[in-house]
Amino acid sequence: MEEVDHLAPERNKAQFDVEAMKIVWAGSKHALEVSDRMARLVASDPAFGKDDRTRLSRKELFKNTLRKAAYAWKRIIELRLTEEEASRLRYYIDETAYTDLHWGMFIPAIKGQGTEEQQKKWLPLAYKMQIIGCYAQTELGHGSNVQGLETTATFDRKTDEFILHSPTLTSSKWWPGGLGKVSTHAVIYSRLIIDGQDYGVNGFIVQLRSLDDHSPLPGITIGDIGTKFGNGGYNSMDNGVLQLDHVRIPRDQMLMRVSQVTREGKFLKSDVPRQLAYGTMVYVRQVIVSDASSALSRAVCIATRYSAVRRQFGSQDGGPETQVIDYKTQQNRLFPLLASAYAFRFVGEWLKWLYTDVTQRLQANDFSTLPEAHACTAGLKSLTTTATADGIEECRKLCGGHGYLCSSGLPELVAVYAPACTYEGDNIVLLLQVARFLMKTVSQLGSGKKPVGTTAYMGQVEHLMHCQCAVRRGDCHLESSGLRVSGPQVI
Amino acid sequence: MEEVDHLAPERNKAQFDVEAMKIVWAGSKHALEVSDRMARLVASDPAFGKDDRTRLSRKELFKNTLRKAAYAWKRIIELRLTEEEASRLRYYIDETAYTDLHWGMFIPAIKGQGTEEQQKKWLPLAYKMQIIGCYAQTELGHGSNVQGLETTATFDRKTDEFILHSPTLTSSKWWPGGLGKVSTHAVIYSRLIIDGQDYGVNGFIVQLRSLDDHSPLPGITIGDIGTKFGNGGYNSMDNGVLQLDHVRIPRDQMLMRVSQVTREGKFLKSDVPRQLAYGTMVYVRQVIVSDASSALSRAVCIATRYSAVRRQFGSQDGGPETQVIDYKTQQNRLFPLLASAYAFRFVGEWLKWLYTDVTQRLQANDFSTLPEAHACTAGLKSLTTTATADGIEECRKLCGGHGYLCSSGLPELVAVYAPACTYEGDNIVLLLQVARFLMKTVSQLGSGKKPVGTTAYMGQVEHLMHCQCAVRRGDCHLESSGLRVSGPQVI
Repeated sequence: MEEVDHLAPERNKAQFDVEAMKIVWAGSKHALEVSDRMARLVASDPAFGKDDRTRLSRKELFKNTLRKAAYAWKRIIELRLTEEEASRLRYYIDETAYTDLHWGMFIPAIKGQGTEEQQKKWLPLAYKMQIIGCYAQTELGHGSNVQGLETTATFDRKTDEFILHSPTLTSSKWWPGGLGKVSTHAVIYSRLIIDGQDYGVNGFIVQLRSLDDHSPLPGITIGDIGTKFGNGGYNSMDNGVLQLDHVRIPRDQMLMRVSQVTREGKFLKSDVPRQLAYGTMVYVRQVIVSDASSALSRAVCIATRYSAVRRQFGSQDGGPETQVIDYKTQQNRLFPLLASAYAFRFVGEWLKWLYTDVTQRLQANDFSTLPEAHACTAGLKSLTTTATADGIEECRKLCGGHGYLCSSGLPELVAVYAPACTYEGDNIVLLLQVARFLMKTVSQLGSGKKPVGTTAYMGQVEHLMHCQCAVRRGDCHLESSGLRVSGPQVI
Repeated sequence: MEEVDHLAPERNKAQFDVEAMKIVWAGSKHALEVSDRMARLVASDPAFGKDDRTRLSRKELFKNTLRKAAYAWKRIIELRLTEEEASRLRYYIDETAYTDLHWGMFIPAIKGQGTEEQQKKWLPLAYKMQIIGCYAQTELGHGSNVQGLETTATFDRKTDEFILHSPTLTSSKWWPGGLGKVSTHAVIYSRLIIDGQDYGVNGFIVQLRSLDDHSPLPGITIGDIGTKFGNGGYNSMDNGVLQLDHVRIPRDQMLMRVSQVTREGKFLKSDVPRQLAYGTMVYVRQVIVSDASSALSRAVCIATRYSAVRRQFGSQDGGPETQVIDYKTQQNRLFPLLASAYAFRFVGEWLKWLYTDVTQRLQANDFSTLPEAHACTAGLKSLTTTATADGIEECRKLCGGHGYLCSSGLPELVAVYAPACTYEGDNIVLLLQVARFLMKTVSQLGSGKKPVGTTAYMGQVEHLMHCQCAVRRGDCHLESSGLRVSGPQVI
């Protein structure tokens, strides 16, 4: 049968400069070039193929991922890729792997919370992948409530060591990616105990497995927590469980940028403000918002193309049926998701600015905008990941029965994105934090404390209560002048 | 560690008779007894185990399902189970399989659309599983629009045969469960063509594979359409693709209860009213609504137990944290789903009554309630399956990170239920049908045509417009008297 390009007529209808939009979407001409080049590199190399991903057993899938990650590392070195290029390469390989945590959490934790000396010791090993690290915070019984973590790191003055211990079943580390099979090291979050006193949760670098034969070190019980939602998805990741039975590490493996324990067992706070940690959180959430846009855009792209090709009902005189993209019920579900993918892309850029702004203020010891910045990132993380998870599933449904087949690509997108609503702050818990911030801001309006950033408009509440939106009909929203506010009441 | 029953205290708080509720839920004491006995039979037999289901490759999973289905058939015969018992046994085996279509679609199609003679010939073979059948309606390019099916069955007067043919790629049969690997026969829906004239879509019994060596018969191209959403789920089903290249079948393999083609090639309508088909649709949708309740109740059960066991935040003086079931945010999401599972159970019972009522009326040539019954079943199918699919996913999220693990059971429930929103009438298309019926009913109010059944209240529109709901505060809804309607305006 002759192949017909069913999409060309739709593409020809574009009323904007597609090439210019590509650059806006990528962020810059340079970013587009890098992205494009890495995409081609991955697509043209059969070693990165993923056609069989949904058919493999868990074991075969995981082996494949190990092969791919090792091969990617080899190519990165052979081609002398920059960190930007390597990161895009990993993005297009499109398979969750222990390397995500090694590069995305283990290294940043040491960079952010380690002293200069610690960074000098550990980062070169990590950069060369002579050690592989993961990030062990969540426990079987403790997720959102980080202050409830049970794992202890008790200082032993005699030997100048910390003793890491899991006192209960619920204190088992649970979920860390890379932990189950691959990692040789972990940053483990534990309650710091000195002389029976609890100094709260701190990070410790702990070796898990032998660098000779990869076997777990004494006192360490470790394993994979089993299959996760979906075909492929996070099943290529070795999310793990870890129990520590009085595991000893040298004192200098506590990450000591913010707090220190001296040889004498004295607990010290450094002059680095503890709020610096918020800077990292703003950064991580900015990445999550950008990822939401990217994930949603992939699903929307599939659903939009399908809607242009698929025809159903409405045949006139035996002619072709109507393209489903021309049905209002399809448009009403699909187009807002397309718009959201763009909106999340641009609000992600704004969060990058917010990160720079917060970082500069923190360095100048200005903490005044932190609560508002925290509420913004919490709210946007929750909003964009919920909308994206629901949106991808909606795109799957918009492809009818065909969206249920793995060959549509959508089931994998649904399953691999789902945990974004839970990790880095459960979305419901985050919204409660935003609500608390907003209530507090409103209650302080009379006190002379000026609301800042995105809430600054609340300072004008008296004036705003007397304004009125000029929009009278729906299509006024399409005129920029319709958005001006004037008159006696805003709704 | 000592095992603690964390659920016992919650269970002890029940303020209703749990044993009595079990009977209400099952439908009768007898149904509860059968259900319970079959559940134990499955649970106690390792051959029905499903622990490894999410770890297997597609091929191994499918082989396992074949083994289980054959073993179940052996046990059904050995234990001389009744059809009711066998059906509950298959329910508890809890694995989609070709047998679902054989018993649930192939046999009912022959029963409903076959003549007595056809039933006598084919049903005994099917009951003994000497032939295995599937139901081939949907095509690659044609789902909701059944009238758009392209497969043709052309009558050849010379040989007294029909020639079945797939003229295009889009006319390939696509999706039928049991087709890909197992079925020997299918009921295939095709356009009936006699002397170049198109008599619309009819069902034909077609043999697909040899009963000797299971190879596809001449002219038949057949295969499995690949992996589907989720771990396990429908991957134990061999949904298939079928192309027919001028396949000949004897004339008496057209299902002829409603329409016939004579030896001379004359097309006849029997005196069996065509509307009888609606009776079957009401029946199928009643089953879907009952299934929705059953699927949702499984997810709600897991999420409720988890919520009682899981604790997070709110520790007082180092005591245990708060059970998440005691948080309003958890209750507001979980309890309406629990209530919905019960509501769908009872509306399913009402649909059983509606089916009986419609059937009796059809037999008396009373078609007056058909449009309303059709709207009810379409609306309830759409409402309950959408709410259930979304509700199961919400239950998954209510279990936090743990709901993402297959060991929670929830990912499989999500994936196996998802297609219910698409099959047997796409939910959006069905809602449009309901909307059309409602608009028509309203527009006919003045014409003297009385609205019937669930829309009968519209006949009192004049009166109702002057009524007012007595509820003034939220808690009035808890008093049955609050639901009375009186006074001048209802909202």
